[in-house]
Amino acid sequence: MQNIKDMTPREVVPGFFGRFMHGDKSSLTYWEIRKGSSLPEHHHVHEQITFILSGELQMTIGGVTTVFSAGSTQVIPSNVPHSAIALTDCIVIDSFSPVREEYKFQ
Amino acid sequence: MQNIKDMTPREVVPGFFGRFMHGDKSSLTYWEIRKGSSLPEHHHVHEQITFILSGELQMTIGGVTTVFSAGSTQVIPSNVPHSAIALTDCIVIDSFSPVREEYKFQ
Repeated sequence: MQNIKDMTPREVVPGFFGRFMHGDKSSLTYWEIRKGSSLPEHHHVHEQITFILSGELQMTIGGVTTVFSAGSTQVIPSNVPHSAIALTDCIVIDSFSPVREEYKFQ
Repeated sequence: MQNIKDMTPREVVPGFFGRFMHGDKSSLTYWEIRKGSSLPEHHHVHEQITFILSGELQMTIGGVTTVFSAGSTQVIPSNVPHSAIALTDCIVIDSFSPVREEYKFQ
């Protein structure tokens, strides 16, 4: 068992601080995101399920822009372009399948 | 986008109320678990990543018993037996890969 309190966050995009758990088939990320930070449009083969714990995160997914707040959740299918802007400080969980190998840090 | 506030929870084991999101490769579950409820030992092919949002959940995973609390997280590999007892009311997120087809409800 690990606890995120004991894990060092990685700032993988300015203002996006992630803690990463990896299995063989999937990854889970706990994000702390600073107000005003933005994640440019990108896509990846990994299916993603986003779940908002707190804050307001404006997401554009497949060309549709929505403001996510606590309890908001959405599946982002493989290769669908998406981007995000943090309207407030946010805490967000993302699950991914397959594993986000590039998020394995030493 | 969905919000868990608008989703009807399913009591899939007594005291375990789940809300389920499904993609093509993975599922995410938001559990509200009542104090004193228990999940008997079981296993499944799906890899699971458990993340505790609140409460204390005693989990036995592969024969090792630990009390999980807010921020605790663990990967449960495919087919590893696990069980749980809620020592308090708990809120827990589980991700699964592949999809938990049996958690697709009408």
